[in-house]
Amino acid sequence: MQILAIKTPSRTAMIDITSKIQEAVSKSGVKSGICHIFVPHTTAGLTINENADPDVVDDILKEINKIVPFGDGYKHCEGNSAAHIKASMFGFSLQIIIEEAELMLGRWQGIYFCEFDGPRNREIYIKVCCG
Amino acid sequence: MQILAIKTPSRTAMIDITSKIQEAVSKSGVKSGICHIFVPHTTAGLTINENADPDVVDDILKEINKIVPFGDGYKHCEGNSAAHIKASMFGFSLQIIIEEAELMLGRWQGIYFCEFDGPRNREIYIKVCCG
Amino acid sequence: MQILAIKTPSRTAMIDITSKIQEAVSKSGVKSGICHIFVPHTTAGLTINENADPDVVDDILKEINKIVPFGDGYKHCEGNSAAHIKASMFGFSLQIIIEEAELMLGRWQGIYFCEFDGPRNREIYIKVCCG
Repeated sequence: MQILAIKTPSRTAMIDITSKIQEAVSKSGVKSGICHIFVPHTTAGLTINENADPDVVDDILKEINKIVPFGDGYKHCEGNSAAHIKASMFGFSLQIIIEEAELMLGRWQGIYFCEFDGPRNREIYIKVCCG
Repeated sequence: MQILAIKTPSRTAMIDITSKIQEAVSKSGVKSGICHIFVPHTTAGLTINENADPDVVDDILKEINKIVPFGDGYKHCEGNSAAHIKASMFGFSLQIIIEEAELMLGRWQGIYFCEFDGPRNREIYIKVCCG
Repeated sequence: MQILAIKTPSRTAMIDITSKIQEAVSKSGVKSGICHIFVPHTTAGLTINENADPDVVDDILKEINKIVPFGDGYKHCEGNSAAHIKASMFGFSLQIIIEEAELMLGRWQGIYFCEFDGPRNREIYIKVCCG
């Protein structure tokens, strides 16, 4: 397992980690298999989305913050329940197929770490399996 | 890796791809393992849901279109931000256990390709791993 | 594949299954690999979230029940369309990395079975793969 450390810049953010995940795949030496990516946190998640127009991730964050408001009568005393909910909606684990040592992503796809309760220091776990 | 091509019929749609995924598993020759399914797009996703009453998928699409409106002051100039958001909520990768060369789905489960910005020509990546 | 049976207590509930999943990993004998968890139902899902303050799961369920109301003009005659939608939003499959025979979860992470249409008798499929 490889561990990637990242620093998030703001309360909510989507950070493109595609090139770092590809580096982890290259380092593993695996030519054909699956790249497992996992977030070991409870107020951050993972997703894939468009890597061309930065307005897309802005729209995603703005809308998800509208669907799950920061404050909505939550009981949890840390005041970050909205972040826990968003993380469960986006998910914590992601799998990408590897062929010829490359992540088999679509043309417009980037892999994003989704911060919902930052800024913070975060980790991402990566395990590359043959198959 | 196998690639499945599909044509989606409308702006939003859930298309049952279970039999095609089972065909891919059979073709792979794997008896015990994991079937990895991946959507290489950013405005379409994958899910599992009921395959008996077609009203279920109609209800799912109608409600998700209400939760994430087609128009809501989005910035992205292509006008399909809602589709990007829905895709991230449903997800792009799905794993199903294989035993005795069969997908271990529940009795009422079907695998669905979720179109959120159609109609379009789409692809699905499938990799079947032993384990 | 191992099968875990659980009984859910109420209409919606999040049940911490972490220790049972770790037992399945230990039983498998796998030291390094991936634990695949799968829910073979269409009105229940899987997620990861905080295992320290029980207010977090209460907040998650309360908010998701607000985002997807139990009744909202759904057509499906069984009256549980909201549960089908919530299950697709949370997801049915989850992967956790294993190292030294342990689930590589974060400090505050628990694995939760999410009941959206209980109380019911449910099953969870677990397959532990080397890698």
